[in-house]
Amino acid sequence: MSDQHKFVLDESKLPKAWYNINADLPVPPQPVLHPGTMEPVTPDFLGVLFPMNLIMQEISPERWIEIPEPVRDVYKLWRPTPMYRATRLEKALDTPAHIYYKYEGVSPVGSHKPNTAVPQAFFNKEAGTKALTTETGAGQWGSALAMACNFFGLDLEIYMVKVSYHQKPYRRIIMENFGANVYASPTDRTQFGKSVLAKDPNNNGSLGMAISEAVEVAATSNGAKKYSLGSVLGHVLMHQTVIGIESLQQMEMAGEYPDMVIGCAGGGSNFAGFTYPFLHKNFTEKKGTKVIAVEPASCPSLTKGKYTFDYGDTAAMAPIMKMYTLGHTFMPPGIHAGGLRYHGMAASVSAMVDHGDIEARAVQQLETFAAAVQFSKAEGIIPAPESSHAVCVAIQEALKCKRDGTKKVIAFNLSGHGHFDMTAYDDYHQGKLQDFEYPKAMVEEAMTHLPKVKL
Amino acid sequence: MSDQHKFVLDESKLPKAWYNINADLPVPPQPVLHPGTMEPVTPDFLGVLFPMNLIMQEISPERWIEIPEPVRDVYKLWRPTPMYRATRLEKALDTPAHIYYKYEGVSPVGSHKPNTAVPQAFFNKEAGTKALTTETGAGQWGSALAMACNFFGLDLEIYMVKVSYHQKPYRRIIMENFGANVYASPTDRTQFGKSVLAKDPNNNGSLGMAISEAVEVAATSNGAKKYSLGSVLGHVLMHQTVIGIESLQQMEMAGEYPDMVIGCAGGGSNFAGFTYPFLHKNFTEKKGTKVIAVEPASCPSLTKGKYTFDYGDTAAMAPIMKMYTLGHTFMPPGIHAGGLRYHGMAASVSAMVDHGDIEARAVQQLETFAAAVQFSKAEGIIPAPESSHAVCVAIQEALKCKRDGTKKVIAFNLSGHGHFDMTAYDDYHQGKLQDFEYPKAMVEEAMTHLPKVKL
Repeated sequence: MSDQHKFVLDESKLPKAWYNINADLPVPPQPVLHPGTMEPVTPDFLGVLFPMNLIMQEISPERWIEIPEPVRDVYKLWRPTPMYRATRLEKALDTPAHIYYKYEGVSPVGSHKPNTAVPQAFFNKEAGTKALTTETGAGQWGSALAMACNFFGLDLEIYMVKVSYHQKPYRRIIMENFGANVYASPTDRTQFGKSVLAKDPNNNGSLGMAISEAVEVAATSNGAKKYSLGSVLGHVLMHQTVIGIESLQQMEMAGEYPDMVIGCAGGGSNFAGFTYPFLHKNFTEKKGTKVIAVEPASCPSLTKGKYTFDYGDTAAMAPIMKMYTLGHTFMPPGIHAGGLRYHGMAASVSAMVDHGDIEARAVQQLETFAAAVQFSKAEGIIPAPESSHAVCVAIQEALKCKRDGTKKVIAFNLSGHGHFDMTAYDDYHQGKLQDFEYPKAMVEEAMTHLPKVKL
Repeated sequence: MSDQHKFVLDESKLPKAWYNINADLPVPPQPVLHPGTMEPVTPDFLGVLFPMNLIMQEISPERWIEIPEPVRDVYKLWRPTPMYRATRLEKALDTPAHIYYKYEGVSPVGSHKPNTAVPQAFFNKEAGTKALTTETGAGQWGSALAMACNFFGLDLEIYMVKVSYHQKPYRRIIMENFGANVYASPTDRTQFGKSVLAKDPNNNGSLGMAISEAVEVAATSNGAKKYSLGSVLGHVLMHQTVIGIESLQQMEMAGEYPDMVIGCAGGGSNFAGFTYPFLHKNFTEKKGTKVIAVEPASCPSLTKGKYTFDYGDTAAMAPIMKMYTLGHTFMPPGIHAGGLRYHGMAASVSAMVDHGDIEARAVQQLETFAAAVQFSKAEGIIPAPESSHAVCVAIQEALKCKRDGTKKVIAFNLSGHGHFDMTAYDDYHQGKLQDFEYPKAMVEEAMTHLPKVKL
């Protein structure tokens, strides 16, 4: 066991391949269905939105997929990222547990999102795409894709939820600085947006609406524009596995191996990126590491949702996948962890929760902020509200070790910093934040809108 | 020459001592004078504001001063910081020059300021100090000292310029998150603040006023509180030399040695921290590296000021030092690089500019933002407006290499990221920023208020 606090890898240790969990899934993958016909989709159907090289990654059975050198060259601007032993937090908690965290906040936009934005931009460029469309909520994903499109010379249209566009200008400015065109959604640039504005000119937008606008623009561009998504899809999760592959090397430097690995889960991408390489060891070397996905109690797809077929988006325009879902029409309460407000969950994460390979936990807003403040006072870094969900369960587990007198090794992914979320911290410190009861009636209502799939 | 982009040091390479340039100064140090008597001050006089262990550092002739282990332990939360070869920027500029940058933005508060905040909190704690006072403008320094006081269990009162307190809440919230008490200055907590408010209840404050309030609180606390300053003083500059000592090791990893080193200079601390270890090599090994301090053309103390005795603060309550100054009553125009709006300059920087060891350059606001945008599009990182001054001259020098067909090695300090300054970038992109003529008449007027020192 090393006494080091910080485990750094030089860039020769940057992974050369992504890990594709399709090769090791303990259950057969479920078909992806067309939102209209409800029949299994063909690559050609997906080809309207995505370039064929990314579709091939989505359905590839290969365990390792090579990372192209131009992508590795951009990764090197901030990767490998550091891993820390949280010795100050351990001392503050007076726990015998050893706590490690991987820190993705060192990327230029402060989160893990560029890990997939960069290869998506690269593979689109390779496929001849000239322009991308996407949506963004508070802007973590949008700023990552704006940076990536800047590097590879692609145009980018971003549909940003209107309320965030006006209330959170910092990330919008980052996107514009990298040359992206950012629109406050709903806009009058799409049929869908126009239909929303016709009913309510002051509509503040939602992530579901922004997705629908970005998809519509790509789908009706006669191939001129493709669409890019920041989570949920298989290739997106796979790109994120650089996080976990580096972490395995860093745990080896530390001379320890985790008894449990923890990540927050919205669509599932940072969670999968960190934990799948450890799951690979579970599958192939029977390591027995506990894998924990943490979600908000107010949007508890994994802990309260149903494992069934549902649309990927609110407007029922996206493909249907088998996943844990609260119903695609469910609108979660306005918690500050905007990146975790998704009705569903990535298919592979869902399948492995259902199969028992991954454990799901739900935590409340106030306990996550309390954990984030405790973490920041010990380690200096102020976590993003999403990442704070992982911090919260790591602290809970470390305190359990203290009660039980057991020395476990706990590792979690700190997926981003909270520098753009300081008003949420202010609200927390001023007692303005609240917990939310599980919105049972709303979920039950949403469940009545599930697609009628005959399989 | 290595092909690596990023040069990382593991924590065993963290410096064990700071470099004290007092031991190598090519000119004898000038006395520090009492603001009232204008006679040389004694350590006892300074002892009202600072603990004796820091005063001893201020006047020490020792070349290397050991960094205590508890300080190194906190440094390890983000240090050693990375150094990059800016290969993408080189390509964008099509220059034969090699450009390196040291990146201090990876600290938890996003700048180099914690390098001195942490030891100042530690040495105060060692000396029995229970509480500190300080001032902050936009909040870089305040957030660093808040984090440091949190780590060592010291209370902290921060006097934050009122206009920033209201317009830039993010950094205020970071300070409060770490447990500091932040007041919008001018306040009614001091005689000085009350006198200002009596004349103008809506006064928006200035850094000079905030310094005067923080100094008054410490000076009238009967020893209960000490005062802490984030730049200008000798011990502050010395604490920052961890930047340059690491950089020397990283240049060695790169297999190159800089022909020139560049830093932005407001009070002088990030500039000195990065360049003094290279100056040490110039002095002791005749390396001949050109050392360039970059300041804003609107506040050009080094390029247009006078090398003479002046007060360190606006209110003429702080000690008098020999330095380049625009006159302590000079109020610089409202450029976005708030950290560079200081009428004077650290004594050692001033002495070496006067002696010819350091070259000074002034650049305009628009060219610094243009350089920052070009840098961010090449390297991903969005620089703080202060750091952008160093970026600007690095790019100018790289383009000069292109014109001359010479391959120089250029290294600069990227002292912080610009995530809290995105509105300034927005203003730049929207054409709302302007350059400022050198305010000659204002400086000439301020020069009539210099202290009448008989030496």
